[in-house]
Amino acid sequence: MSLETKFRMLGTDNAPGQEVRQGVDGLGDLMRGDALEGRPVDFSHGDVDAHEPTPGSFELFAEGFGKGAAQAYTEYRGDIGIREQVATDLAAFTGAPVDAADGLIITPGTQGALFLAMAATVGRGDKVAIVQPDYFANRKLVQFFDGEMMPVQLHYAKAEEGTAGLDLGELEEAFKAGAKLFLFSNPNNPAGVVYSKEEIASIAALAERYGATVIVDQLYSRLRYSNVAYTHLRAEPIDPENVITIMGPSKTESLSGFRLGVAYGSSKIITRMEKLQAIVSLRAAGYSQAILRGWFHEPAGWMDDRIAQHEAIRDDLLKLFRAIEGVSARTPQAGSYLFPALPDLSVSPADFVKILRVQAGVVVTPGTEFSPHTANSIRLNFSQDHAASVAAVERLATLVERYRT
Amino acid sequence: MSLETKFRMLGTDNAPGQEVRQGVDGLGDLMRGDALEGRPVDFSHGDVDAHEPTPGSFELFAEGFGKGAAQAYTEYRGDIGIREQVATDLAAFTGAPVDAADGLIITPGTQGALFLAMAATVGRGDKVAIVQPDYFANRKLVQFFDGEMMPVQLHYAKAEEGTAGLDLGELEEAFKAGAKLFLFSNPNNPAGVVYSKEEIASIAALAERYGATVIVDQLYSRLRYSNVAYTHLRAEPIDPENVITIMGPSKTESLSGFRLGVAYGSSKIITRMEKLQAIVSLRAAGYSQAILRGWFHEPAGWMDDRIAQHEAIRDDLLKLFRAIEGVSARTPQAGSYLFPALPDLSVSPADFVKILRVQAGVVVTPGTEFSPHTANSIRLNFSQDHAASVAAVERLATLVERYRT
Repeated sequence: MSLETKFRMLGTDNAPGQEVRQGVDGLGDLMRGDALEGRPVDFSHGDVDAHEPTPGSFELFAEGFGKGAAQAYTEYRGDIGIREQVATDLAAFTGAPVDAADGLIITPGTQGALFLAMAATVGRGDKVAIVQPDYFANRKLVQFFDGEMMPVQLHYAKAEEGTAGLDLGELEEAFKAGAKLFLFSNPNNPAGVVYSKEEIASIAALAERYGATVIVDQLYSRLRYSNVAYTHLRAEPIDPENVITIMGPSKTESLSGFRLGVAYGSSKIITRMEKLQAIVSLRAAGYSQAILRGWFHEPAGWMDDRIAQHEAIRDDLLKLFRAIEGVSARTPQAGSYLFPALPDLSVSPADFVKILRVQAGVVVTPGTEFSPHTANSIRLNFSQDHAASVAAVERLATLVERYRT
Repeated sequence: MSLETKFRMLGTDNAPGQEVRQGVDGLGDLMRGDALEGRPVDFSHGDVDAHEPTPGSFELFAEGFGKGAAQAYTEYRGDIGIREQVATDLAAFTGAPVDAADGLIITPGTQGALFLAMAATVGRGDKVAIVQPDYFANRKLVQFFDGEMMPVQLHYAKAEEGTAGLDLGELEEAFKAGAKLFLFSNPNNPAGVVYSKEEIASIAALAERYGATVIVDQLYSRLRYSNVAYTHLRAEPIDPENVITIMGPSKTESLSGFRLGVAYGSSKIITRMEKLQAIVSLRAAGYSQAILRGWFHEPAGWMDDRIAQHEAIRDDLLKLFRAIEGVSARTPQAGSYLFPALPDLSVSPADFVKILRVQAGVVVTPGTEFSPHTANSIRLNFSQDHAASVAAVERLATLVERYRT
């Protein structure tokens, strides 16, 4: 693939947070009725003003800055003292050991971890099993490294309660056809569903049978709603050298502004990731790394409160969506994404998303970013001000009626 | 190239700052005499405790954090307000316009800028002209993107006073042979030499003649010693869409712990870089971006002091090196790198570097990181405590005598 083609495919026009660079050409003719007044809400990402960074994070940063050179220039894979603490906490969280020296790397955000992990495992022409729908960068990464995508459907909308709905038959077919890597997010982004114990066990068993590596993006695995069981792939019977787990404090903990992520597991892959990090960005910002000392050590009750606040917003938005005729929306079990499917409208889904932004001050991410089969869906990150997000979804409902076929 | 091979070539064992991961196996037999006592000095990078971050930088970070969501989630290419300010300052500094909207991107360090710029311009099999010696990541980037390296020699040691010594004939040969990209650092890392007005004009003319793109890494272009003239390639007659300039506040300003860089120039390349940044790391850490508001706005006299301090260290270390029989060292005109060539020793240069670390507490970077032709040289970043660096080079001189053939 030429560079020209490669970068054309790397479109970011609809990427979350980039809406400011979109034009509104040609929308004028499509507009119906007056603009809907109300506080604008950008559902493309969480609002860290409404749900503030973990208490104490700034103070930890200040301490790190105060340490000077020792904190500014860490090993490329991150400060060893911090890696040791985080490894202990992640081992306790996931139920399987983490090797601080050789099995963990600190990266610029989980995006950095994902990029490095994919670069370390995807060569030209390699087949990679990818879930549809899943995080929009996953397919872009496969394309960038000249891999070949093997889509595996997630039947989240019609799956049995308590399962995510992964098409395990399709996953096995992908492995049979030569895929040596499977990448997925759990909880799923955008659908917010959590894989059942049986699904995770099956993924582990299939990976073992076909000698495949699995990269699992568990970015939202701490924000789980009432009565949701969560299974960590890395604690299942699977060769630990074939698993990389990715997490970070950007979402639930609202620390995205520090750009921190971690990848842990396979020392072979982590070693490659560090070699590559040396030419990609050297290291996660040294002073920022210091805030990881507070990760998993939030004040008592803080995480419960954060979860309760998000669960309340989720429930109110679900009620509003389900009151719109023709909308279907599965209840997210974890994370802060809602992924409702809208009814047929008289404008294209892409235009509706733009109209929504211009007419109602509501930014959402179009479903096509996550799968070619979810064009009618929109993703909302509901980590927002509660009242403002309710009002925003009410405006959205009004616009759906204006454009209903 | 298989991934296995690719990552084997991406060795970081001798990369600056990674010495902590080196073993010392087999060194025992080579050791001569007692260890040399003294305060350890790590010349692999600057010491931000000895030369502290720009005054006010932490306060700017704190302000950025205080802004909350607006600063945490910027456009992928960085906050527009900050880009506007930086664009104005960089235009004044370089003498050519900078387009804040479309011609500038903020990245995680200059390493991030370099990675993205190379990814945006080097396709599989593309020929890339690279200077020898030059920054160690340059060749690794070409290899990572499956490009073909066309080395161009920099005869820094025997060049005329006031010139860097680039072999312009070799550069033209590289362009004739099909290279469409030339990457170089100015001032040169590791040699500290500055390209003359004539050299830069010739590079511009050759790039124009052969329609080549030039990426120039000007990371150290603010730290220039007495009576050194500096020419910005981007202000020469050259198609601005064919030039990318890279800078950042990590070195002279000691702000590496925030991980910030900028690339500016060609809007086509910047657009690609942003698309890629979306899957590499999303953005430079949002809160960190805020410290760029202080860049080029240091307190009056601060930069002059910083330069004077470095010039004094440079001069003292040069005296010490030149007193060692058989050492040659050109005077660096800018930046904080010294690149002396050592005399023949009875151990390999690689072992000498390790012995130096173990026996004398002195970390330097081996010359092989920068060019296959500079194995006898070592690079020292002399942005260190003045007295400690003098004592460290005295210990180095003692060890040279122990191992002299």
